Amino acid sequence: MSVTAAKGFTAAGIAAGIKESGQPDLALVVNEGPRLAAAGVFTSNRVKAAPVRWSEQVLKGGQVSAVVLNSGGANACTGPLGFQDTHATAEKAAEVLGGNAGEIAVASTGLIGVRLPMDKLLPGIGKAAAELSAHGGEKAAIAIKTTDTVHKTSVAQGDGWTVGGMAKGAGMLAPGLATMLVVLTTDADVDAAGLDAALRSATRQTFDRVDSDGCMSTNDTVLLLASGASGVTPAPDAFAEAVRTVCDDLARQLIGDAEGSSKDIRIEVVGAATEDDAVEVGRSIARNNLLKCAIHGEDPNWGRVLSAIGTTSAAFDPDRIDVAINGVWVCKNGSVGEDRELVDMRYREVRITADLSAGAESAVIWANDLTADYVHENSAYSS
Amino acid sequence: MSVTAAKGFTAAGIAAGIKESGQPDLALVVNEGPRLAAAGVFTSNRVKAAPVRWSEQVLKGGQVSAVVLNSGGANACTGPLGFQDTHATAEKAAEVLGGNAGEIAVASTGLIGVRLPMDKLLPGIGKAAAELSAHGGEKAAIAIKTTDTVHKTSVAQGDGWTVGGMAKGAGMLAPGLATMLVVLTTDADVDAAGLDAALRSATRQTFDRVDSDGCMSTNDTVLLLASGASGVTPAPDAFAEAVRTVCDDLARQLIGDAEGSSKDIRIEVVGAATEDDAVEVGRSIARNNLLKCAIHGEDPNWGRVLSAIGTTSAAFDPDRIDVAINGVWVCKNGSVGEDRELVDMRYREVRITADLSAGAESAVIWANDLTADYVHENSAYSS
Repeated sequence: MSVTAAKGFTAAGIAAGIKESGQPDLALVVNEGPRLAAAGVFTSNRVKAAPVRWSEQVLKGGQVSAVVLNSGGANACTGPLGFQDTHATAEKAAEVLGGNAGEIAVASTGLIGVRLPMDKLLPGIGKAAAELSAHGGEKAAIAIKTTDTVHKTSVAQGDGWTVGGMAKGAGMLAPGLATMLVVLTTDADVDAAGLDAALRSATRQTFDRVDSDGCMSTNDTVLLLASGASGVTPAPDAFAEAVRTVCDDLARQLIGDAEGSSKDIRIEVVGAATEDDAVEVGRSIARNNLLKCAIHGEDPNWGRVLSAIGTTSAAFDPDRIDVAINGVWVCKNGSVGEDRELVDMRYREVRITADLSAGAESAVIWANDLTADYVHENSAYSS
Repeated sequence: MSVTAAKGFTAAGIAAGIKESGQPDLALVVNEGPRLAAAGVFTSNRVKAAPVRWSEQVLKGGQVSAVVLNSGGANACTGPLGFQDTHATAEKAAEVLGGNAGEIAVASTGLIGVRLPMDKLLPGIGKAAAELSAHGGEKAAIAIKTTDTVHKTSVAQGDGWTVGGMAKGAGMLAPGLATMLVVLTTDADVDAAGLDAALRSATRQTFDRVDSDGCMSTNDTVLLLASGASGVTPAPDAFAEAVRTVCDDLARQLIGDAEGSSKDIRIEVVGAATEDDAVEVGRSIARNNLLKCAIHGEDPNWGRVLSAIGTTSAAFDPDRIDVAINGVWVCKNGSVGEDRELVDMRYREVRITADLSAGAESAVIWANDLTADYVHENSAYSS
């Protein structure tokens, strides 16, 4: 159902020839109104791709009539000419769809440091516009894939309104967003400020808490567009919860499809003095290469969990930390706990719980293991 | 020549049976005086192994008569009983060698969360003491190896005095020290304060700037012992330089022997506004898993360098960053520079230069690539 699950949206996904493979590589998502409200969250990487710098400007107006997304090239580190390419993309979409280029968001994903083939991309916009449909959400989700093995979509139903979405991302998933492009749509009648509040709250607790490989992209973009076509204005809490549900589902799908991964690791930090402490500790565990290798080897190596916790500035007493792996408390009071032989790690999902015994706050971070396949995929990516 | 290159030291390395393989696993380094001055630097991990907590106390007195080092077990996360084991180790060494347990430093390396086999370790101290020799430095260096493929030693000669040293470490090399045990010795006549100043200055620019895999150990220990046996008190600058030379050589040997690595990556950040900025940027590049994979694949993927720089808080303008790989400026002004096909990456050493164009400060960080062998070694470590 994807981005066309909500009323008032059309979408398309086509092969414009940007990818040499001939796979789909260009998506359009069009808000047919009556409202054109929008909010966006972007990478916190200071090296930002041209489409990110463009779309940040667009979103300041709070109105987006359409989003052009391409895979096959990130248009990052491409200088002033790369920015001109993004500008030309928005102008072309405005010409084809009608409307104002200043209300067209652009998102790109793929290799950094390579100019986009504009002779393919610009005609592709016309071709995609001709295929726009209220059932085009799946095709759009397929066209934004890079190394993703599956396309990712999600839907949440409210009382007379809907939130739908699509995502791409299979690596470089890290706080401050990931190499992810996400477009969420809703037919709820919510203004730009309401969208912004719901989206920031949701991304903070979902996309910002997946950390596949510790790497932050130059292109991360999460957009939420509202058409108002349902005529219903939901209660802010109910709306925020629906946005969070869709984001959480998509974030979980990203982790489940991370490049070369064999395990999804759910890291829950409890007993923290503050939520920030819980997040800091969770991320430190999530990024520990030695632990990630151990999990890959189905080795419940809790010493590496403690070693990662010890590098943080969170409040804790090392002698009061407990760690469970898949429900077995292998570390108690900072030392040996239950028998590690009891830990069953055969399944894809691995649950690590770290209890800091320092308070009542908690957070969940999702990560992946580190595998030879990850090394292989990322050694060969640009060659 | 190792720790016995300097006059006034004896050492030994033996197989005490701590390692099931029967390989050497226990080393003794004894300061025969006349001076017993010492300084130490330890892991900044807040989860500290028992021997680290013990030796930190010992070093506060500024006097060390002997160091007991074992491989085959880290004695970390072993609770109060683990600390008692370290205490008993020092007591046993004091009994065998004469002297005060409060002047015996202890260092351990190996798996976390496992008690040491004290029934093997304590008799081993007597056995090692019986083999102490002014030529025992090499054997001591061999006995502290874990996954190291070679033992590491270094010597610098002053004007009538000498600094020697040994190191172990093959992974978990990260700032705030690494999984490394290092013992340096000198026959220069320098007091504890002089040793401390020279050691802190040296480690800050050497061991703290190698980052094999971003992981920080619970056991890192670097000790500098002075016997005064040469009767010469060097100029502080000359002494500091000799200590730095030995540390730099040992640090470089650690990177060259990092677990599963196929490349040594020298990351030089220049044009930084401050040295701290240069170090922050260098570490961020050093820890980027995607870049480490690319280097392994001999792919001069400068986009991943920029992506890593962008996550830092250093002063720079993204459009003024230049990046060279092995001397080819593949990125200029944050965008495409010289032809990446010109970059020759066949050799083990890879040089990355990042010019932030923001000042005159610089720093060098050493790292390794990320390989399938690293994953394999660290998936299988404790099983």
